Amino acid sequence: MPADKMALGVCYYPEHWPQSRWADDARRMAEAGLSRVRIGEFAWSRIEPQPGQFDWQWLDDAIETLAQAGLSIILGTPTATPPKWLVDLMPDMLALDREGRTRGFGSRRHYCFSHAGYRKQAARITRALAQRYGQHAAVAAWQTDNEYGCHDTVLSYSAAARGRFRPWLAQRYGTIEALNQAWGNVFWSMEYRSFDEVELPNLTVTEANPAHWLAFRRFSSDQVLEFDRLQSDILRACSPGRDVVHNAMGFFTDYDHHQLGAQLDVLGWDSYPLGFLEMFRFSDADKLAYARQGHPDIAAFHHDLYRGCTKGGRWWVLEQQPGPVNWARHNPAPMPGMVRLWTLEAMAHGAELTSYFRWRQAPFAQEQMHAGLLRPDGTPAPALAEVVQAADEIDALGAAGNAVKQAALVFAYESEWVTNIQPQGQGLSALWAAFDCYSALRKLGLNVDIIAPGTPLDDYGLVAVPCHPIASAEFAAQLERFAGQIIIGPRSGSKTADFAIAEGLPPGALRSIFNGTVSKSESLRPGLVHQAKGWEAAGWLDHIETAASPEMVADDGTIASYRQGRVRYLAAWPQGALIDELTARAAQDAGLALMALPEGMRIRRSGRYVFAFNYGTVQCSVPAELTGKLVLGERILAPGAVVVLTA
Amino acid sequence: MPADKMALGVCYYPEHWPQSRWADDARRMAEAGLSRVRIGEFAWSRIEPQPGQFDWQWLDDAIETLAQAGLSIILGTPTATPPKWLVDLMPDMLALDREGRTRGFGSRRHYCFSHAGYRKQAARITRALAQRYGQHAAVAAWQTDNEYGCHDTVLSYSAAARGRFRPWLAQRYGTIEALNQAWGNVFWSMEYRSFDEVELPNLTVTEANPAHWLAFRRFSSDQVLEFDRLQSDILRACSPGRDVVHNAMGFFTDYDHHQLGAQLDVLGWDSYPLGFLEMFRFSDADKLAYARQGHPDIAAFHHDLYRGCTKGGRWWVLEQQPGPVNWARHNPAPMPGMVRLWTLEAMAHGAELTSYFRWRQAPFAQEQMHAGLLRPDGTPAPALAEVVQAADEIDALGAAGNAVKQAALVFAYESEWVTNIQPQGQGLSALWAAFDCYSALRKLGLNVDIIAPGTPLDDYGLVAVPCHPIASAEFAAQLERFAGQIIIGPRSGSKTADFAIAEGLPPGALRSIFNGTVSKSESLRPGLVHQAKGWEAAGWLDHIETAASPEMVADDGTIASYRQGRVRYLAAWPQGALIDELTARAAQDAGLALMALPEGMRIRRSGRYVFAFNYGTVQCSVPAELTGKLVLGERILAPGAVVVLTA
Amino acid sequence: MPADKMALGVCYYPEHWPQSRWADDARRMAEAGLSRVRIGEFAWSRIEPQPGQFDWQWLDDAIETLAQAGLSIILGTPTATPPKWLVDLMPDMLALDREGRTRGFGSRRHYCFSHAGYRKQAARITRALAQRYGQHAAVAAWQTDNEYGCHDTVLSYSAAARGRFRPWLAQRYGTIEALNQAWGNVFWSMEYRSFDEVELPNLTVTEANPAHWLAFRRFSSDQVLEFDRLQSDILRACSPGRDVVHNAMGFFTDYDHHQLGAQLDVLGWDSYPLGFLEMFRFSDADKLAYARQGHPDIAAFHHDLYRGCTKGGRWWVLEQQPGPVNWARHNPAPMPGMVRLWTLEAMAHGAELTSYFRWRQAPFAQEQMHAGLLRPDGTPAPALAEVVQAADEIDALGAAGNAVKQAALVFAYESEWVTNIQPQGQGLSALWAAFDCYSALRKLGLNVDIIAPGTPLDDYGLVAVPCHPIASAEFAAQLERFAGQIIIGPRSGSKTADFAIAEGLPPGALRSIFNGTVSKSESLRPGLVHQAKGWEAAGWLDHIETAASPEMVADDGTIASYRQGRVRYLAAWPQGALIDELTARAAQDAGLALMALPEGMRIRRSGRYVFAFNYGTVQCSVPAELTGKLVLGERILAPGAVVVLTA
Repeated sequence: MPADKMALGVCYYPEHWPQSRWADDARRMAEAGLSRVRIGEFAWSRIEPQPGQFDWQWLDDAIETLAQAGLSIILGTPTATPPKWLVDLMPDMLALDREGRTRGFGSRRHYCFSHAGYRKQAARITRALAQRYGQHAAVAAWQTDNEYGCHDTVLSYSAAARGRFRPWLAQRYGTIEALNQAWGNVFWSMEYRSFDEVELPNLTVTEANPAHWLAFRRFSSDQVLEFDRLQSDILRACSPGRDVVHNAMGFFTDYDHHQLGAQLDVLGWDSYPLGFLEMFRFSDADKLAYARQGHPDIAAFHHDLYRGCTKGGRWWVLEQQPGPVNWARHNPAPMPGMVRLWTLEAMAHGAELTSYFRWRQAPFAQEQMHAGLLRPDGTPAPALAEVVQAADEIDALGAAGNAVKQAALVFAYESEWVTNIQPQGQGLSALWAAFDCYSALRKLGLNVDIIAPGTPLDDYGLVAVPCHPIASAEFAAQLERFAGQIIIGPRSGSKTADFAIAEGLPPGALRSIFNGTVSKSESLRPGLVHQAKGWEAAGWLDHIETAASPEMVADDGTIASYRQGRVRYLAAWPQGALIDELTARAAQDAGLALMALPEGMRIRRSGRYVFAFNYGTVQCSVPAELTGKLVLGERILAPGAVVVLTA
Repeated sequence: MPADKMALGVCYYPEHWPQSRWADDARRMAEAGLSRVRIGEFAWSRIEPQPGQFDWQWLDDAIETLAQAGLSIILGTPTATPPKWLVDLMPDMLALDREGRTRGFGSRRHYCFSHAGYRKQAARITRALAQRYGQHAAVAAWQTDNEYGCHDTVLSYSAAARGRFRPWLAQRYGTIEALNQAWGNVFWSMEYRSFDEVELPNLTVTEANPAHWLAFRRFSSDQVLEFDRLQSDILRACSPGRDVVHNAMGFFTDYDHHQLGAQLDVLGWDSYPLGFLEMFRFSDADKLAYARQGHPDIAAFHHDLYRGCTKGGRWWVLEQQPGPVNWARHNPAPMPGMVRLWTLEAMAHGAELTSYFRWRQAPFAQEQMHAGLLRPDGTPAPALAEVVQAADEIDALGAAGNAVKQAALVFAYESEWVTNIQPQGQGLSALWAAFDCYSALRKLGLNVDIIAPGTPLDDYGLVAVPCHPIASAEFAAQLERFAGQIIIGPRSGSKTADFAIAEGLPPGALRSIFNGTVSKSESLRPGLVHQAKGWEAAGWLDHIETAASPEMVADDGTIASYRQGRVRYLAAWPQGALIDELTARAAQDAGLALMALPEGMRIRRSGRYVFAFNYGTVQCSVPAELTGKLVLGERILAPGAVVVLTA
Repeated sequence: MPADKMALGVCYYPEHWPQSRWADDARRMAEAGLSRVRIGEFAWSRIEPQPGQFDWQWLDDAIETLAQAGLSIILGTPTATPPKWLVDLMPDMLALDREGRTRGFGSRRHYCFSHAGYRKQAARITRALAQRYGQHAAVAAWQTDNEYGCHDTVLSYSAAARGRFRPWLAQRYGTIEALNQAWGNVFWSMEYRSFDEVELPNLTVTEANPAHWLAFRRFSSDQVLEFDRLQSDILRACSPGRDVVHNAMGFFTDYDHHQLGAQLDVLGWDSYPLGFLEMFRFSDADKLAYARQGHPDIAAFHHDLYRGCTKGGRWWVLEQQPGPVNWARHNPAPMPGMVRLWTLEAMAHGAELTSYFRWRQAPFAQEQMHAGLLRPDGTPAPALAEVVQAADEIDALGAAGNAVKQAALVFAYESEWVTNIQPQGQGLSALWAAFDCYSALRKLGLNVDIIAPGTPLDDYGLVAVPCHPIASAEFAAQLERFAGQIIIGPRSGSKTADFAIAEGLPPGALRSIFNGTVSKSESLRPGLVHQAKGWEAAGWLDHIETAASPEMVADDGTIASYRQGRVRYLAAWPQGALIDELTARAAQDAGLALMALPEGMRIRRSGRYVFAFNYGTVQCSVPAELTGKLVLGERILAPGAVVVLTA
């Protein structure tokens, strides 16, 4: 948790507007309570309009103007948008999609992470920027590139990618025999005689070896990490003392954010609750009920996930939706109050910064229908007043204080790669298992930290491992040492590091904490459920040989969960009332303070405060269990309202 | 409206049948009341079986045979089906689809409009035909090519297209700086240094600049116009005094039909009510209810649209469905009586000609399941008797007389391009907004003219502009001068000509007639509605700062429409009961004679008659308001029946 | 019907396991009652790890080890999985998909059947295997390749395929004029001047000529037949006296199984009832009701189909699902008892062998989630006990005896090609018409033989021809000679051999048995039905001019079927209660013993026994009509139970 109060900021594109307007914009930002401004991340064609010919004047002026208004600057490297002349110089820098089509110039992110030539160019422009502005007093932080992987750009099927994949494999496996063995390539005569025979796993006749895919996913994630490190090394060398940050996205797992976070100072993320609700796996009912608020766990899930990605737990909201966006299937406006709510919620979860995207709505190009704090005509959009209000309230509240640890939820990016590569049952995903488990815990009123395996567990009462196929012996040992309640979900421990079935069958290494053997696993189509009173086992079923006691048993005798001491094994897919009930039991046993929150309400405890948020469409009351003194708002919350009590 | 009675015709393919059968076919056509016959449009491989080697004999004979039976001929240029030898001579004449795949030989329309070599070939074969038959007494008209754009063939992503696109842009914008400025290419560093750097907008990583797309749509439409002009120039030179016509399709917008119509003498269209119902955006309920009749507004919408495309208001039905077709998802047979009904309806709307497709069902190749007036065995199909009946009835009725002007509906092709490129809310389309608004007006018993901006408005009581994003100052001025009632729908005036947000925010130039500012626009997922008694606001919501009076207000206070003098601004999407109610209010205020038509009935007033058509599945009565004398049919209409009263 | 009792076998991959384990595996197989073992079909990379360098030792040892345990061996040629080095030597051996993309190495079936170089390689490896093991006493049979066509691999759009297609056409049509005439290429100027101008029918602008497609389908099927013959010729020469078999799949029609069966000794097939239920065209209700049993007609349909494909009626189940599979959308486990049920059902239908796939679940690669008789850890999976039980029961029962002939159902593979190429109404397929008609007959308690046209009909009381578009004069004559009841379904006789409308209109040649003319055919969207009491006419409607008596007439007068003596013509699509009722009437008239089976029960009569199977989820009783003596099981059947009575 940050020692200081959360700062507010905004994303700004001086190159989009006449220079005459900049000073006024800067003044109005400061007046609105904003102290940070992110600029530059798409401006390559203005910084270097011709190969090697730089135009710094405008950027010098822009930085100066913003600095004079008292704003500190987050400066972006523009590598997400190489100019056309660069692409024409080396057309093979473009990525290929899974179908083998070149992904051309004309929007953004048109490059392959593996392309050596583009890496050199990215380093060159980064160095040029860092050398010019690295020591500028107003430059407080650097953002590398922009939204790695957006538009499905982590996985590239180019010749450049294949060219790097082979030595990456050689490095990992040593000999081709080891690779053949690890992947089980004897199956279907897929054995290679040398690393040079290995292809990328796309465009095969039927699915490629899942081990092949997993290696390619890991490789592709590593390419992002290398690409980012290339930039951060330069930035740190040329601009010491500044934070290096990248902006992650929502529900995005194509690279390992724990690993990226480990090499950054701060992990930022871009929070678009309404767009995410519309575009991701929520029910139609939720998409209607929360159309103008976002599902109550969307923002918080990412806050709690990305906080766990950096060593210091430092995280920012680098882009906060301020109104309708342009990129979802349908784009409603936030309910009045939601921009303020999302801002205070970020504070409650420990953000150091919330930065809105963007200052002023651009009247042109791809995002012309994306709202800003100002309308395209420069007058205030509805969000601006909410930002001003939030700024005042944050001033009054000060720092939120340290986080209260209650429940931990383990999530590893490669878990999602495994379930994505081999769902076995359509739609069963480790990411969404994590989300649904997170939601269950939050509905109990708990603080949840989403953590990588290996993160210290000392202060938690409960650890949930909803779906974690590749479980190492170290992780098992860590759980063994943990004294609190443990929930293990299906498929956990089921795979080796190279995507084979775990030695001795699932749950593999986790047998050290749960003594059982998964003898058979089934996936079940929607509707094929095992009913019990108040819940049902659905989606997946692990059949287990164990001496552990069945705990949740369906009417037909199907065992949905087992209990063995402080460990629960959930044999059905974590979803719905089943995961709600199971987490409630475990939390109870952990001695955590539970409460029945009204529908749509969520709470968050920080060292100094308890925050409550009403995401619902009707008013509701703070539970009686929360007895702190009112600091902000009322105990009865209108839709979109926030209340802050003393801890 | 034509001064003469509507003629009947038929499409015929002498090359499909033994020459011995032609005379008999011609005789039977004439006996059935048909006076026109369209031939030749797919016969290139028979006219020129080897490169440069023509075989005219069969076509000479066919024309002679038809002429001797008293039939006049519409002769088609065969450029929609270049023979294989031509494609093999220049394979790059083929179009590429959006995915970059070559669209090969083996069906039809296998060419790219931009290919210079193919343009030469098309001119060559057109000239050869025109020189041979241009002065033939029986040749009354020429059809250029066939159904431009069918099978998604307007947009080609070939090298030839790119090669013409660049100079087209240079012509339009003058300098690359002007293009960069107009498109807002500073966004995402999309700036070009020269026109030679511009690519086609497909296969980009994420969506290309909407301005880029709009330019490509305009360019592609222009390619069709140029291709057509190449032919019509030759035809007019070699065959003076004959009509040049092209056959448009249903619900098709990929080229600008107003511009094509302006360079033709007559615009024809191909009317397949059952196929269109099945394949286009109608509800499942409508697809069932009207499966054998077609939705009651499908044919009329196109009649009223294409009539407005030529300078003289001349239009033909060049292909009329006579039975089941082969190309829809499901292909039922028309209800008995429908072929006659469609024929009389075309007359009521002012067609000069209705021509059936085709004379005799071909037993082979792609359309072997497409009905004709004859079955494949040469005996009459059910439609033939209805054609004979219609011919007699048309003889008895004579000319329909001039149209009665009541309501005008403004539609521009580029409106559909804009909403297609940037729907902002899934499925929201200017074309279908126009259709639903048209339907609402027609259910009130009104005659509707669908017109381009700039068409004189003098005689109308009401003008509807359902969705017209690019509104020029000239158009606004025209509306300002108009004294009748005006309805403006959402997104109207929202964009500049280069797809940026209108200066001063929407409705841009239309602020001269409606004093308001759209401060925010939302799109709403199905089900996210604002209820009122009898209607709901759905799909889209413009929030407006205005002194105008809210007129239609939902129960939750959402304002669905405003009224300011004779102008109504509809802030929600034009659909369902909302557009029905709004058009009724405006029509009432316009003093137009309204009536409550039975479900499925439509009427059409011409100078001499009032026609009523029963598209429903139950019998219904002509409204009491229609007091004219019975000329044809009865006041109680069985399903599929027609009644004609004196005006 | 086999004279001996049905054998049991298993699929085994010694190359997947340490050699030290083989002897134990073999012993356990024998102990479980298995007598056959299939090996080798994916082992090319182990047999020939480097070009031309063979490693026979391991395979020698494996065969020896299995033989010593008393197992006889079905040895597979490994041509479904050529090794990477072979692909790298001639990359153009790879198939291209319909979109023109190369289908690369990395899974299986990565070859084009038409590639001359790969054919040579396939012959070479086949000869090498046959020469080494052809005379081995334990080798009882050879399996050619594996699952021809799996993963959509029959149709290849490669240059190799085009190169063979042209001479194939020349062979079939003689002159290009004959081809142009037969296909009706005058339509749309598709005429060719030579066979070298003919392309493959993919990637055309709109659909290619159906005659073009049909020729390509026939050609592609022929490529499979040739490829297979190449191997079987070698195998027969080098390994006389052994059966040559191939393993077909479920609901797969891309090559002509009647023709393949005719050139094999035995046709095998791979039975995965749960996977097929999930992946094919069953209703959601059936997918739930039968999720753990499979629809009761899935396995039997294929038993009865493939039995009719070889001259001797010899057929095997080469792969039998023993637990959850890995490749369906959802993969539940079979209900306890189902593996035994499926085994006994195969016996009842006359299988010589049921072989389970696979012995032990592989812990690695693509099928690691596919169950075996052993779990990956080598302990028994649930199916093993059922196999042991079935083995004992089969021992006790002995041979099933000759089949009882009651009803025949005519199915030709090219019927499905025709309806697939030209459905005319979405989803209307000859294969599924056959399945639904089969299901109707089986629900009456009848034995059904699925046969090709030309198969002797002597012993049947009823012949059903659900949808047979290309009906030859010979077939019509055969039906004319048949004395029993006949059902002819829609589209039958509607096409010539070259996909034109039959001379004199449908039913073409079948007019010799049903005197009528189809004047018009409609396809009807779901919901567009003609209701009667207890059934409805839906999907399709043939309108017929005939003196035959209407038999089944809907409430609105629509005639669903006609009767003329012993022939019934079904004018609506064979589905639901309509086909149930129509088959019941015909079977009644045929004097066949009918009974009302409980939901989910099916019976099968063999010479010695009557078998009954309960596929339902509730218990049910054997119908009173079955009065035989109990041999196995009880007259009241639990879900998944089997009962055997004396005949």
